[in-house]
Formats: sequence, structure tokens, C-alpha cells
Amino acid sequence: MGRVGMWCIGARGSVATTAAIGVHAIGRGLAGPVGCVTAGPAFAEAPLAEIGDIVVGGHDVASVPLLDRARQLAASGMVPTHLVEAVAEDLASDERELRPGYVAGLGESQGAALDRLTDDIRSFRERNRLDHVVVVDVSSTEPLPADDPAHHDERVLAERLADPSSAALPASSLAALAAIESGSAFAGFTPSAGIGLPVVRARAEHRGTCFAGCDGKTGETLLRTVLGPMFVDRGMRVLSWAGANLLGGGDGATLADADAVRSKLASKTRGLRSIVGDGVVAPLHIDNVPDLGDVKTAWDHVHAEGFLNSRITLQTTWSAYDSMLAAPLVIDLVRLLALAEAAGRAGAISELGYFFKDPIDSDEHAFHAQSAALHRFATAAANGVRATEAIAGVER
Amino acid sequence: MGRVGMWCIGARGSVATTAAIGVHAIGRGLAGPVGCVTAGPAFAEAPLAEIGDIVVGGHDVASVPLLDRARQLAASGMVPTHLVEAVAEDLASDERELRPGYVAGLGESQGAALDRLTDDIRSFRERNRLDHVVVVDVSSTEPLPADDPAHHDERVLAERLADPSSAALPASSLAALAAIESGSAFAGFTPSAGIGLPVVRARAEHRGTCFAGCDGKTGETLLRTVLGPMFVDRGMRVLSWAGANLLGGGDGATLADADAVRSKLASKTRGLRSIVGDGVVAPLHIDNVPDLGDVKTAWDHVHAEGFLNSRITLQTTWSAYDSMLAAPLVIDLVRLLALAEAAGRAGAISELGYFFKDPIDSDEHAFHAQSAALHRFATAAANGVRATEAIAGVER
Amino acid sequence: MGRVGMWCIGARGSVATTAAIGVHAIGRGLAGPVGCVTAGPAFAEAPLAEIGDIVVGGHDVASVPLLDRARQLAASGMVPTHLVEAVAEDLASDERELRPGYVAGLGESQGAALDRLTDDIRSFRERNRLDHVVVVDVSSTEPLPADDPAHHDERVLAERLADPSSAALPASSLAALAAIESGSAFAGFTPSAGIGLPVVRARAEHRGTCFAGCDGKTGETLLRTVLGPMFVDRGMRVLSWAGANLLGGGDGATLADADAVRSKLASKTRGLRSIVGDGVVAPLHIDNVPDLGDVKTAWDHVHAEGFLNSRITLQTTWSAYDSMLAAPLVIDLVRLLALAEAAGRAGAISELGYFFKDPIDSDEHAFHAQSAALHRFATAAANGVRATEAIAGVER
Amino acid sequence: MGRVGMWCIGARGSVATTAAIGVHAIGRGLAGPVGCVTAGPAFAEAPLAEIGDIVVGGHDVASVPLLDRARQLAASGMVPTHLVEAVAEDLASDERELRPGYVAGLGESQGAALDRLTDDIRSFRERNRLDHVVVVDVSSTEPLPADDPAHHDERVLAERLADPSSAALPASSLAALAAIESGSAFAGFTPSAGIGLPVVRARAEHRGTCFAGCDGKTGETLLRTVLGPMFVDRGMRVLSWAGANLLGGGDGATLADADAVRSKLASKTRGLRSIVGDGVVAPLHIDNVPDLGDVKTAWDHVHAEGFLNSRITLQTTWSAYDSMLAAPLVIDLVRLLALAEAAGRAGAISELGYFFKDPIDSDEHAFHAQSAALHRFATAAANGVRATEAIAGVER
Repeated sequence: MGRVGMWCIGARGSVATTAAIGVHAIGRGLAGPVGCVTAGPAFAEAPLAEIGDIVVGGHDVASVPLLDRARQLAASGMVPTHLVEAVAEDLASDERELRPGYVAGLGESQGAALDRLTDDIRSFRERNRLDHVVVVDVSSTEPLPADDPAHHDERVLAERLADPSSAALPASSLAALAAIESGSAFAGFTPSAGIGLPVVRARAEHRGTCFAGCDGKTGETLLRTVLGPMFVDRGMRVLSWAGANLLGGGDGATLADADAVRSKLASKTRGLRSIVGDGVVAPLHIDNVPDLGDVKTAWDHVHAEGFLNSRITLQTTWSAYDSMLAAPLVIDLVRLLALAEAAGRAGAISELGYFFKDPIDSDEHAFHAQSAALHRFATAAANGVRATEAIAGVER
Repeated sequence: MGRVGMWCIGARGSVATTAAIGVHAIGRGLAGPVGCVTAGPAFAEAPLAEIGDIVVGGHDVASVPLLDRARQLAASGMVPTHLVEAVAEDLASDERELRPGYVAGLGESQGAALDRLTDDIRSFRERNRLDHVVVVDVSSTEPLPADDPAHHDERVLAERLADPSSAALPASSLAALAAIESGSAFAGFTPSAGIGLPVVRARAEHRGTCFAGCDGKTGETLLRTVLGPMFVDRGMRVLSWAGANLLGGGDGATLADADAVRSKLASKTRGLRSIVGDGVVAPLHIDNVPDLGDVKTAWDHVHAEGFLNSRITLQTTWSAYDSMLAAPLVIDLVRLLALAEAAGRAGAISELGYFFKDPIDSDEHAFHAQSAALHRFATAAANGVRATEAIAGVER
Repeated sequence: MGRVGMWCIGARGSVATTAAIGVHAIGRGLAGPVGCVTAGPAFAEAPLAEIGDIVVGGHDVASVPLLDRARQLAASGMVPTHLVEAVAEDLASDERELRPGYVAGLGESQGAALDRLTDDIRSFRERNRLDHVVVVDVSSTEPLPADDPAHHDERVLAERLADPSSAALPASSLAALAAIESGSAFAGFTPSAGIGLPVVRARAEHRGTCFAGCDGKTGETLLRTVLGPMFVDRGMRVLSWAGANLLGGGDGATLADADAVRSKLASKTRGLRSIVGDGVVAPLHIDNVPDLGDVKTAWDHVHAEGFLNSRITLQTTWSAYDSMLAAPLVIDLVRLLALAEAAGRAGAISELGYFFKDPIDSDEHAFHAQSAALHRFATAAANGVRATEAIAGVER
Repeated sequence: MGRVGMWCIGARGSVATTAAIGVHAIGRGLAGPVGCVTAGPAFAEAPLAEIGDIVVGGHDVASVPLLDRARQLAASGMVPTHLVEAVAEDLASDERELRPGYVAGLGESQGAALDRLTDDIRSFRERNRLDHVVVVDVSSTEPLPADDPAHHDERVLAERLADPSSAALPASSLAALAAIESGSAFAGFTPSAGIGLPVVRARAEHRGTCFAGCDGKTGETLLRTVLGPMFVDRGMRVLSWAGANLLGGGDGATLADADAVRSKLASKTRGLRSIVGDGVVAPLHIDNVPDLGDVKTAWDHVHAEGFLNSRITLQTTWSAYDSMLAAPLVIDLVRLLALAEAAGRAGAISELGYFFKDPIDSDEHAFHAQSAALHRFATAAANGVRATEAIAGVER
């Protein structure tokens, strides 16, 4: 497979920090790969990078040292203190691979920023002699941007990028462009625009970038896409599916912003509707409850019609550290997008829809169907890599 | 497909009465087949009996008229009153097809009883000119019987059946034998011994009986076999899965009996263990709470280990009329076992494991895998029926 | 005590209809006074009107016959059919005491409407020879009205009432004025303005009207004012108390209106804050989920800080027919306000705060303290009535 | 008030260790007295010992150093690591006041053990110049002992105590006797026999020992005694109240023992029945779920009858570290029993029933009534102490 780098946008955030701790803890044999899908038997034959060999880097607009961030997470009770201390040197070493992210309004034109961000990723690749770099956006969710001609037309965009007074692209899309230009793969783990803007996506297709997204499916939506198909399969009619989400932490504060939350809520119900039908009544709220910290609690109430008009209700309460759910999936995406590259794939890797609330180029939201597609992808990609290597061997 | 009969053991119980109301209500267009799996698109091509054409009969040890029983269910709030009244004549007509069940200790030898029960089913078939009769055991759960040589050896059994002072077989197995001898298919919807005793099963195999079981998977266990695979697929380690079941009604009283409940509890955790691993801590209780009537409420608490030793908890509360969940599945089994017969199948139809907590001849408990197997069965059986009909056409 | 009349604003709504069914069912001995606070031992000595003797009347803007409304409630499963049929004649008789409510914009000046509404109540009193009439507002929750000089100044109000093109008062306040002018007591069971407008309240004080309100405390808020004091008493620090309310029915639709809901949400958290402190994070949502009908389901999640910074969480899920919770309290209020009148009380009866989310003239929200105050009121009022009667006896 | 000692039976257990950490953390100003009832405003005037001044000692049959035990609790995530380290010296110093408990079957007669235990407590008192010592039993719950003449007759007991081959008393009662003989107060925080055996209680009454018990009311039962009165007060009829308790830790293992659990289950439902009526159906289970550690999760399902036979259901899920709930109450009991002694009280202090599932000499289980009684006790005791001090001042 070669050497693989994980470049996080939001590298000092909870998810990226947790993923970095995990890479090192697993690498040192201090923790097993619990929560990593790619550690399962279905992937035993796939030539994936060893988790402990993944090289960590990234952009962030914050500057708190990664090790301090990790210690904050330990103090909050989320990560065991002894684990953080055991990988403290690794995190200090990762620190050297972190670079300042892009912030609008500081006088840097987006064109200049794009060059800078692209160079950061390229030099990360070269310095660490990486065969694959996967850029994963785990930064704070942005509001959906207003539509703009620059989002559709490469020439308009080029003009605007050069103009220091213009911020044509949301930061997530600038990051996606940097990934593309640096020859990396890209995964959008948030509902932000990212690679979804037409002009960015067109560039990715043109450059043969492997990409996947968007918005990681970690908790409540995961449950919904597992339970929804059960009701349908059993012939029951889901009438309503109401949800309440409580969370604190940075994510809670971000999502308390009504604009940012709108894109999140939309992607959360899209899958549900595609499974149980558009007629479902599905009110959904996300509340910022700072005292809960990074523990997310989601309550769902499902009302289904059963035989002879009878009432069936199901309530679920899911409670977990949100970053602990996301981090192993970030590692999975790094391994799988590197695998896709190695197997010669390009463009949207729709079989990775398994990981997302709003899968790119896929209408399949049912969890088990997604899982089957993912397993088929792994098998095919493994075969593809072996074929490529066989050819390479002949040629050599 | 021809004409199909549904012969319920426990024909005056809540489940059978609800199924009978449903058959007629659907037949008269007063209700849709909500909750019937076989009404789904995956079965659109299968030559199944029309639900409204199913002929109803059965055995019961109680003698309350079926219509009175239906009105009791309506008074309890479970079935809409107007529906019961709209099918009152149909239920009165079904009444003529109900026969007394077998009760141990009344002087009738089990051999004589077997002949009587068999004749009842045979004459039901002839009187109604049925092509297929499916016997479904929906009577009260029995305690598991002590082992007995008569359960293993046909000759020992024959001697004991002739002895009026002996009750070698539990009633559910006598009922299964009557199904076999009358040339009917058999489904065991309870955890009772039924067709599971070696001597009974051997007889079924010898006679080419189509059969399936056991213990209908309606609520809490359904959820577990849907959710369990999610945890495994996502690489999480399920540490404990505790459950509390509250129900009243006749079933609550039966299951409050420690002996009867043991078989139920065993079949409820078997599937869970096969999915998430034998190490799971899985305490489970069923409590009789008479004031809850036929509404069953099940609370489950799942504790899983996630990334870096983090804690994930999920609680589910499921609440529904238990008989309303069971009745449409009984109708499904009637349609599908008749289809299996029509397609020339014999013996255990393991693809019907989808419907059961403890599937005969199948170790597959994961819901979506069972669903896929069921769909394959329907397709194959449909093809089988069409092939048989083509041959018959040629021969005619 | 004499004869008592219950005049409902919204007399054809779910709550009033349920209360009427209850009055008659209890009067005929078909149901016990379950859910009526005043049927408890603490009120055994108080000279309250017999529930079955309460005379029913009211205003409503709808015209569906009361008996039809009752049958709709039975069809929805809320009220037992046999009970409705058993009191069908009583409901048909009540029908003769229902009068059209006030609707803005139909050309009737509010002054004319006030006269008409007042006359309706007066003639109800005279026709039925009632000693006490209690007007209870159980109509749909209104949006809070914009402030208006007419709400503060009787002279401005008088001018505006005479102007057919002006609607100075919200309907609930017009109803309260009609109660006052007709010499009745008044209870505001909704968060609508009602008697709370300064000009209306001043009039009530001047006329010596007994009144209480506002917004009946039936479910989630009841629980909060019971559980909140526990946390405080035990020295725990409540950090957050989040709530989700799901309901359908007419109430669900009304409260889906953001304006109407604002007053409801405010009154729902006011009590909580007064008990556990203003710092509590208390997001609260009410969602209209039509398929749930009149069954209201409320989920609350409480996070408290315990010893040495430890985390305590409590979740509650409350599920009940909202009108079934409200109706017996309406009957209680009728009995208790009639008692207050008989005991010579006037003005706000703050001891009835027990029944309300937002008690008039009381800052006490803790349930058990309110209960104690209510019991003291009942004792004192009973003594007051006896004293009055003794004087009357002497004078006679 | 003078100097006060807290002598824990089970001093190296989770509850006692947590209480010791708390005493020191509060004493050093590192934590507030959150969760301590006696820190509330109702006790502001009572002359209670400062929490930080309480001197810690105790018996235990285990020998793991207290500081190691505290570090185990920190590693499990229950207590913050920094807090344990900040009071490490205090815990090391407490270690010097811990003595071996009594273990049956090691050859020591119970008489000799009693003398030894008594001396331990006496010398603790003298060495630390304490004015009051309160012995609190927080050791593992024992099975209820079989009845024995020695439990009723002091002379029989005396003979048996001298016999090295006899173990007439359960360990908890031996501990209570040692408390009595050493002139200390006693609180039974478990359902073990303790001071409840007639012969022990008689001795306590004779010696004028202040005592209270039994079985700390910390979680599920607390909720029940808060919520039960609400249903009653509102005239609703509680039909069933089912409960499921999941916990690991040492307590989970102890309570998985069917004998030990029987006493616990009995004390848990006694209060409920006294509040909502004996007719309530109240199945209750405690399951040992080791992976949950010391976090206890309790689910309750309440079904009540409301107006016109309507169904009301309430579910509660309570989740907290059990020792974190118990420890502050242990501190409260130490402060309050010392206060009772200072105020000249003797015998059962029934006003402390507030703290217990099964209050000695009190039938009052309703939380708010218990709270009121506790507050009256504090006021009266404060007055008693002041009166005593005034007299002492006069005499001096």
C-alpha cells in the first residue's frame, strides 16, 4: 500500500485530536482498533495501511498545541489520561506537521491562500515520503453559502480568487481545492459545502481526485438508517420520527447557530425520508447544552402504524462522546480512500456512503445495504491493487 | 396457488382472533395489509394466496365464542370496535370451523386425541376444498418437557400413545403430529416443544411436511437482531445488553410461570449471543403486569465499548400490542408455507428463520441477512411454482 | 354550597367535552372521580358541590354538536365508547346551554359582544338557578397581544369597545370581562392573556371577582415542579433541563404556531427557573405531530452536578391524553372557586397556584408547597363558609 | 459543636473512600459541598461540625491502602485524578486510623472481637480528642440472618459471644454493638441487620445511643418517594410501578447474591407501597452488570389510571455513580447524629428517615414530608444545643 498521510482540516479540534491519539495508541499497542470498521473481518484481505503507520498533519485556525488539546480532552474525562501521556511525544512530533488554516478577512486573497494551503500539503507529502495523502475536513460546520456565480464557473472563480477583497469560496471548499491541487484524496466529514460546490467538484473530477462525503454518520442518524429499514421490511408504516439532540462542546455551540444547523438538519432527515417515505413527520432539534460537554445525547420517538391501525412506538436514547464515534471513522476513511487511489479509482467513491449522512452520488441510506456495498468495494479494490501490483511486477 | 387454510392451535386466543379479524377486514377492503411482510414489493411476483381468501379454523381448549373474544379485544382498546362489528358475520362463520383442543388428564389417550385432532384438520381441508392447510401453534407457551424415551423412539411413543394413563407428549407436539398426519404444513410460533421433539421432527421429515419455527420474533428480539449487527459492523464491542419486559394479558400470566419463561428467555438471548458474542452480559426479565393488558413494553439497555475505551450507551423502549405484532406474521407464515408446499419443498424451511427468535436449522439471526434469505426463498419458490405449473400444463 | 355552574370558553373543545362527559359519568356513578384533586381526603370536610350536580354550559366559536364531539373523542380511542353513549342524553341536554363565542372581524363591536357574552352567562345562571358560576377558559391558546393603551386605561378601552372596527382585546380577555360583568368567577386554564391584562384585572378586583390562573399544570411542568425541589433539597446543582414535547390534536396545531407557543414556552420554564435557579440551561420544544392525536409525549433530560463534580442524569418520558389530565382539574377549579366565593373571598385566589404553570400572585412553584397551600385554603374556606352560614342562620 | 469523628464500617470501600476524599477536598476548599443536604439554607443556623474538620477512621476486612483505593476510583473515571492527588497526604494520614474488621471463622470469638472493635473506636476518640464519634455502616450488604434466640435475649447472647465456635451475630450487628459500647452514635446505611436486631437495639436504648437507619435512599427509591406522592395528590391511581436496576462494581456483585438482594428489594418496595397503596404491582430486579462499574442505571415504568379510565405512563431513567450519591449523605448523617448527641437526644432519631429506604421508627416515606421533619429536627436540635450551652455557660 505504501505510506499514508492523514491531513485534517481542523487538526486541533476534538475529532482530529482524538484520531491522532488513537493512531498513536493503536500503533504502540496501547489500544485496540475498537470502533474502526476497517479492522473487521470483511477487510482482512484488503491491503490497507497499518493504523499505527498513518502520518498525521493538518490545518487549523487555532494555535493551541496538540498535546495541550489532548490533555484538555483527558481532563474532561473523554480520553484516559494515561493514554494521552503515553503518546505525548508522538503528539509533540505531530505538532511539527500542523499549519495555520485559512481565515477570511485577514487580507490574504483566496488565491494566495489556496497556493499556501496546497504547498503545505505537498510539502507534508514530500517530507514524509507519502504515497497517499487523504485530506479530511473535521472543522466546525459552516453555514451553507449563498449561491454565487463563482461556484459554477471556473473563470469567474479564478478572477475572484485573485481579488484580496473577495471571499468567493467558503473555507471548506478552499480546503477541498487545496486537497485537489496537491494531488490528495478528500473526505468531507461535516455538512459544509466542501467539495460539493459544482466548480470544486468539476475540478476534482478533472484531476482524478478520489473523494467521499458528506457529514459523518455517527449516532442518531446511524440508528435511524438501521431501524428505518426494519419498519419498512416488516410492512409497518412509519408516521412520525421526532428527534432531540443535546450536546455541548464546540460542536454544540456551532450548531446552536441557526444557519449552520439548517444544513445539518437537512442532511439528518434526508436519509430517513428516503427510507421510510417522504410523508413522515420528522421534527428535529439540536440544542447546545454546554454542561454536557462532548457527550451527545439523542432521543428519538418513532410512531408507526401496525396491523389493523394499531399503535407501535419506539423510543431510543443514544449517549456517547461524539468525537469518539467520529475519530475511528476518520481513520477508516483515510485507509479506504488511500486504498481507492491505490486501486486506480478516481472521482466520487460512492461506496463509502456507509460513513455519511448525505452520501455523494448515492441514494442508498439503508445501513445494511451500504455495508454490503462497502464490503464489495473493499474486495474489488483489493483485487484492483493486486492486479496493479502484478502489472507493475511484470513491467519491472 | 389454490385455496389455503389457516388452522390455529389456540384459535380463540388473542393472536389467532386478531389474525382472523385481520383476514376478514383485509378481505373486505376495510383495512390494508399493514404489518404483513408478504404484502411488500419483494413478494409482488410470488404466487401467494390472497389474504382475504384464507379460510380460518382451529383448535382451542377454551370455548368462548370467537366473536365474543373479538369483542373483548375491542373493549380493551386493542382492535377498533367498528372493525370487529364489520366482520362479525365472518367470525360467526369461522366459529363453525373451531374444534376442541387436547387437554391432558381427561381420560382421552393421546393416541385417540391424535386421531381426533388429525381428523378435525382433514375434514376442514375437505369441507373447504383446500389445496394447502397450514397449522400454526399460537397457544400459550408450555414449560419445556422433561426428556423422555418416547421423544426419541417411534416405537416407544406408539406404546405410550395407546396408554390412556400416559401423556408422553406435550400438547404442542401432539398438535404438530396431527398437522403432519393430516398432510398439513406446520409453524411453531411459540417456544413450546412442538415439532422440535426428535420423534416428531423425524416423522415430519419422513412425511415431507413443510415446517418452520420457532417462537415468533415480534418486538424486543426483533430490535436486538436489527441493532446488534450495527454494533458489530461498526467495530464496537457490546459488553452488556440488559432487558426488562412488562406485559399483562394471558401471555403475561403464562410467562410469569418460571418454568414456561425459561424456554422463552433462552430463545430470546440465543440470537443476541450469536450476533454480538457469547461474552455479552445479558440479564433479561419478563414481568407479569396485569394492568398493562396486551400492551407489551420492553426496555433494553446496551453498553458498548467504543474507540479508546469510551462508553457508548443505547436505551430502547418498545411499546405495542403484542398480538398486533404477531397476527400479521401468522398470516405471512400461512402464505409462505403454502407457497413452499406449492413449490415442492419439504422439511424445515430454514429461510423462514426471519420470523423466529430461534430459527430451525439456521444459525443466522441478523435481521437483514434473514430478510435477504427470505427474499431469495420467495423468488426461488415462485419460480418453482411456475415450473411445476408449466409441467402440469404440458401434462394436461 | 348551593348550585354550581361550569361555563367553559371553548365548550366544544377536547378538554371541555371531556369534562362534561366526566361530570355526567361521575354523576351517574359510571366512573369514579379519579384524577380529581378535590376528591382526595384533604377535601373531605370542605363543603364542595357534588361533581355530578355541576351544570354545564359555555361559549364556543365552533358549532359541531357536543355529542358528536364526544363521539369523535371515543372514536379516537380517548374516551370509552360505552361511557359516551351512557351520557348521550346529558350531553344533548348540555347542548342547549352552549352559545356562540366571539369571533373578531365579523362586524360585531367588542362592546356589543361583551354585552351578548355577559347576557349568555347571566341567563345561564338564572335559568338554572345557580348560586355560583365559574367561567373557565379552555379555548385554544392565543398569541400574546401587542401592548395597547386600551389594556391599561378603562376609558380608552371603553371608547375602543364601542368602535366596530377595533379589536382592542384578545378574545380571552373579552371572555374574562364577560365573566366579571356577569358576576361569575374566572379561571384561565391557558397561557392566553385573559384576566391578566391590567385593565381586566383591575375590573375584576373592583367587582370582587374570584379568579385564578394561568395555564394548567398537567404533565411535563407538573413533573418538573415535583422533581426540581428534590434536586435542590438534596444539595445537587441542576445544570440543564432540556425538554421535547410531541403532540397532535388541535392543541398540537395551535402550538406549532410560533407566536402562540412563545407564551407557552415562557410559562413552562418560569417555574423551573424559580426552583432550580436562573442559571439552568433549559431548551424546550413543542412539536406538532398530528399522528399522535391527543396523546402527549414529553421527554425531559436533566443533568445535575453531584458530589465532587460527578454527573447525575435523569430522563423522564411522560405519556398521556392531555385532555384527560386537564378535564378533572377544570372540575376541581369549578368546585374550588365556587367554594372561595361562598367563603367570601374576592380577587386572585393565589392558593390555587397548585393548578397552574404560571400562578397569579404567587412565586411558589414547588409542587408540595403548593399542595400544602391548597390544603390550607380548603380548610380556611370551609371554616369561612360555615361561619357565614352560622351568621346567616342567626340572621334568619 | 466540638470535634467530630466519622468511623466507617467498610472504610476501604467505594462509599467510605469517596466520603473521605470529599471531607478533605471540601476542607481544603478544592470542592464545594454539592450533594450534602446539610449544606443547604435550612441548616444555616444549626451548629454543625465543619465538613473539613471531620476526622476519618474505620474498620475494614480488606487491607488495600486507602490512597490506592482512591486512585482506583480515579482510574475508573469516578473521581477526578487531580482531586485524589491533592488530598493524597490526607488519605495517607487517614490510613493510620483504619483497623481490621471482624471476619467470622478465623478463630476469634465474637466476644473478643467486640472488645477489640470497641477499643479501636474508643482509642480513635481519645487519640483525636473527639467530642462525638458517629459509626456508619457502609460495608457490603449481608444476607438477612436466620432468627436466633441470641438476637432476642441478652443472656443467651452473652454466652454465645464467649464461644469461639459460635457466630451468633451478623458482622453488621457486632459493629453496631461496638459503636454502642464505645459511646458512639450509629447509622446503618445498608439493609443489613445492624442495630435492628432486638437485642442490639435494646442495648442502644439502654445506653442512650443516638442511631438512625436503614439503607440509604440514594437513587431509584428517592425518585419513587418524590413521584409517588404526586400521583396520590393528583388523585391518580398508580396501578403498577416496575423497576430494573443495572450496576456493576462490588455492590453489583454483592446484590447478585439472591439472599442479600432479598432484603434490599423488600426495603425498596416498602416505601412505595406505603405511599401509593398495597395493591400496586411492583416487580423489581437488580442485575449485576460488571462492565457498568459503579455507574448505576435504574429504569422505572409507572402506569397510573387517570380520569375516565385513561392511561398515564411515566418512565424514568436515572444514571449516576452510586457512591457519589451515598458519600455526601454519609457526611450529612455524621453531622446530624453528632448534632443530635449535642442536643441531648437518645435512641432512634426518626427524623433522619429522610435519608433511608426503610426508616427506623417512622412510617413516613414521602420525600417532602420527610424533608419537613428533618428541617424541624435541625431547628429543634439547634435550639437544644444552644440551651445546653447556655446552661453550661451559667454553670461555668
